[in-house]
Amino acid sequence: MKIDVCFTPAELAGLELAGKTAVVIDALRATSTIVVALANGARAVYPAGSIDDAVRLIQNTGRDGALLCGERRCVRPDGFDLGNSPLEFTAERVDGKLIAFTTTNGTAALQSVSAARETLVAAYLNLGAMVEALEAEEDVVIVCAGRERRLALEDAVCAGMIVRRLRERGVALKTADGAAAAVVLARQYGDALPRLLAATAAGRQLAELGLEADVELCAELDRYTVVPRVRDRQVVSTVSEGLTA
Amino acid sequence: MKIDVCFTPAELAGLELAGKTAVVIDALRATSTIVVALANGARAVYPAGSIDDAVRLIQNTGRDGALLCGERRCVRPDGFDLGNSPLEFTAERVDGKLIAFTTTNGTAALQSVSAARETLVAAYLNLGAMVEALEAEEDVVIVCAGRERRLALEDAVCAGMIVRRLRERGVALKTADGAAAAVVLARQYGDALPRLLAATAAGRQLAELGLEADVELCAELDRYTVVPRVRDRQVVSTVSEGLTA
Repeated sequence: MKIDVCFTPAELAGLELAGKTAVVIDALRATSTIVVALANGARAVYPAGSIDDAVRLIQNTGRDGALLCGERRCVRPDGFDLGNSPLEFTAERVDGKLIAFTTTNGTAALQSVSAARETLVAAYLNLGAMVEALEAEEDVVIVCAGRERRLALEDAVCAGMIVRRLRERGVALKTADGAAAAVVLARQYGDALPRLLAATAAGRQLAELGLEADVELCAELDRYTVVPRVRDRQVVSTVSEGLTA
Repeated sequence: MKIDVCFTPAELAGLELAGKTAVVIDALRATSTIVVALANGARAVYPAGSIDDAVRLIQNTGRDGALLCGERRCVRPDGFDLGNSPLEFTAERVDGKLIAFTTTNGTAALQSVSAARETLVAAYLNLGAMVEALEAEEDVVIVCAGRERRLALEDAVCAGMIVRRLRERGVALKTADGAAAAVVLARQYGDALPRLLAATAAGRQLAELGLEADVELCAELDRYTVVPRVRDRQVVSTVSEGLTA
């Protein structure tokens, strides 16, 4: 398997996505929230580039079967049903619902990989399931959402842990600079995720807003087995589906 | 001191450069070449964004006192005096000369930090001198040129070594995710620079072109004491000048 890591979506300008499998990570919090939403029964998550796009989607779908969710500056916009806290996405709230979802970094990252053959959504919460799902792939690009166009350490480490676990499972990997750097970061920080996530710029900002519980949840490894995948511009759960069909 | 690291120039979109000191690194090879050129007596290096810009500059200056230098795809363009190999920039060739210099990644990185208060040029070759020069600064952003919009491991490690050495000299540093990641990479790779530089994507490409000697030279630590600094859009040598004047 060829596996590459972009620490920010801007690095995508330096590679060709066509024919590749993209894995998008925004561990604090968007991709963690998507994993939780789908694990708790949401029908699909629709990444929207703007608040207006999210509102329009809800207007087209009808408010009954849908929820307007997301954040700007970590806070739920006025009129939204839910913010971007994975703890809000309980089965009671999201089961059977379509989630229109707009966040500062995560949904932009999802949209940045639209040229990929496949797009999967990863977080610490579903890392093991993601590694299993990727095992038979041939050409993978992990795209870290980062934070306001900067590297986010929690995303880089998550990317490195996927690479490490693939290697531990015996997958022969062809890597270059990005994946090599991510593996080094994963070795340094992967055994102390709660401490890492609390110390990163994103983790500290969330703590300042009283959202430490979000950070703790997002640091939990392998809590869910859901493998979110983009189908027709929506992120849906594909727990059991083979990826190389 | 506040110190930040951008692994690619694109990360500059996420921060404010005004009032800050930028340090640009393109260890393989542009900033190494600038260090060697100035150490060997070049009057100034003028970073040009394009081959046309470099040619125009030479036409304005007169070919006698100036050299047209640089690369595209690692190779010297037709009609250029020198390429981007630091080994070409001997005292015999460059002493007293103005160097019009255009490269794929390095000169673009230099131009990307034009909003900074000060711009310095770093490589492994002048790392110790750079650390000394930075010691009294208050707000530093290290910008890795990277390679074709991607992270280049040799630049990231060089950035991390600057941060580590500043800390070892007792400078109290305020860092965030980028600098923390760079330090981890420097700890991993900083003691085996020749091996690292030979193994990175840029190093392998240069080896394929028969330029292993360039890679070996660029991996030499602290060979020069020159501190290149941008003045009036030219990079000049400022060995002795205080940086906080």
